[in-house]
Amino acid sequence: MLTNTRTTRIEWGDCDPAGIIFYARYFDIFDVSTTRLIEHALGMSKIAYLKAYDFLDHPLVETRARFLLPTRFGDEVAVETAVAACGRSSFKVEHRVMKDGALAVEGFETRVWVVRHPAEPRRLRAQPIPADVVARLTRAAVPSSSG
Amino acid sequence: MLTNTRTTRIEWGDCDPAGIIFYARYFDIFDVSTTRLIEHALGMSKIAYLKAYDFLDHPLVETRARFLLPTRFGDEVAVETAVAACGRSSFKVEHRVMKDGALAVEGFETRVWVVRHPAEPRRLRAQPIPADVVARLTRAAVPSSSG
Amino acid sequence: MLTNTRTTRIEWGDCDPAGIIFYARYFDIFDVSTTRLIEHALGMSKIAYLKAYDFLDHPLVETRARFLLPTRFGDEVAVETAVAACGRSSFKVEHRVMKDGALAVEGFETRVWVVRHPAEPRRLRAQPIPADVVARLTRAAVPSSSG
Amino acid sequence: MLTNTRTTRIEWGDCDPAGIIFYARYFDIFDVSTTRLIEHALGMSKIAYLKAYDFLDHPLVETRARFLLPTRFGDEVAVETAVAACGRSSFKVEHRVMKDGALAVEGFETRVWVVRHPAEPRRLRAQPIPADVVARLTRAAVPSSSG
Repeated sequence: MLTNTRTTRIEWGDCDPAGIIFYARYFDIFDVSTTRLIEHALGMSKIAYLKAYDFLDHPLVETRARFLLPTRFGDEVAVETAVAACGRSSFKVEHRVMKDGALAVEGFETRVWVVRHPAEPRRLRAQPIPADVVARLTRAAVPSSSG
Repeated sequence: MLTNTRTTRIEWGDCDPAGIIFYARYFDIFDVSTTRLIEHALGMSKIAYLKAYDFLDHPLVETRARFLLPTRFGDEVAVETAVAACGRSSFKVEHRVMKDGALAVEGFETRVWVVRHPAEPRRLRAQPIPADVVARLTRAAVPSSSG
Repeated sequence: MLTNTRTTRIEWGDCDPAGIIFYARYFDIFDVSTTRLIEHALGMSKIAYLKAYDFLDHPLVETRARFLLPTRFGDEVAVETAVAACGRSSFKVEHRVMKDGALAVEGFETRVWVVRHPAEPRRLRAQPIPADVVARLTRAAVPSSSG
Repeated sequence: MLTNTRTTRIEWGDCDPAGIIFYARYFDIFDVSTTRLIEHALGMSKIAYLKAYDFLDHPLVETRARFLLPTRFGDEVAVETAVAACGRSSFKVEHRVMKDGALAVEGFETRVWVVRHPAEPRRLRAQPIPADVVARLTRAAVPSSSG
């Protein structure tokens, strides 16, 4: 499956009065990592791929995370992100946040390919993921080290 | 089990270019709701209960969420929060975000009662939840409608 | 000029390792307060007034803030917001964050009424504020205590 | 004066329903940039310099920003940050966010060197910036391109 690793730094403003990262910030980190993975797979930025494939977004329908080791401001972490499965209109992504070689956090997401409902623009509607995208998300991992 | 319901509003800055809430913001909402629940159970603010029980925080070790209906800026939602279980040094919390009477999001958390490790202040150590706190978190629900 | 006061609470996730609010969070608070003020003036939610007046948003072109007293998680603050001036396509808003009756933070904003550029949708273009809106933003203050 | 430039990317979760960055996120960006500048000047991470110089933080007492060009998700920006002045217990920092070579945002900050008040730990007290730090913050710019 497709994988991508990026490094990021936990910052002062990400941390809470206990001095460790405020857990909600990991979901910001995960969202960036999923976007980077798909950008990498499709060879274009999110703003470009939303337009090229004419869809609204790939929002989450479910997520899960386990927090094993705390991280603090100044910590550099590596976020390893992989497509774990790809269905007709949804796909699964897994994240592993590594700190000094140890697993600090694991995240799991299920996302859906959505468009605006044609009759009611405020509703969203799942739609099949284009075959071209499925092929790119499910191909064997390629070496990568994008930022 | 102890429960608490509060209402909150999804704001412009919580939403993304698809016009719906950016999912990470739900975890900010859940954290506030858990704090309110414990404040309600213990009859004091978080700043006071951290001091009274001399601990660092009750961070998450695991969380899970299901996103059923999108919410948009201006939506008023009710967040129903309950203690689902209480162990020796950890406890489970469940959140239900209701929009116009329908379940929009479900969240599940496992949190641990932690102190700073006495020998290494940068490490955290789980510690038994005080019996008084366990009793208050596991008592039958009382009617409440705190903000 | 039109004014509105709302109360909000500084939360754990808004605070940094120094135990006080992370200053960027005040700008989230200010944005909510400006929205509430305009909603109050126009008698409809932001999602409704963007549609009714067919514009994209009222983004900031300039802001300034002074931080006089720190706030901490659990602090209830009152945010007093007023329209300070209203021009052809821009308007000025002022915020005063009060903590226990003392001024904690002052904020000043200049915002512009914008639409998408008709020829280039990725550009924004300032547009005159509708006369009806100007009238409502500049009328004498009415008593209010909206949430 | 000391300067530092870093690049960062505006992400999906930083943007609002108008499709442009939600302005409060710039203050998160500025805070990271100031931290990087001081880390660069002092040759150690923030967690290390707070300890080495035994102080609580360098919070803001005043800030100002001008927003000239909108940025969107996927935009890579360069943030040029410089110490503009250094007084006895406060210092001034300026940020310039450049997008495709054009100035998109300017930010100005005044920060204070604070410790906890010895008699009342919940109060903060300004304290003279150590001479060693002043010397490093006010030395001539050195070429840098830290991340």
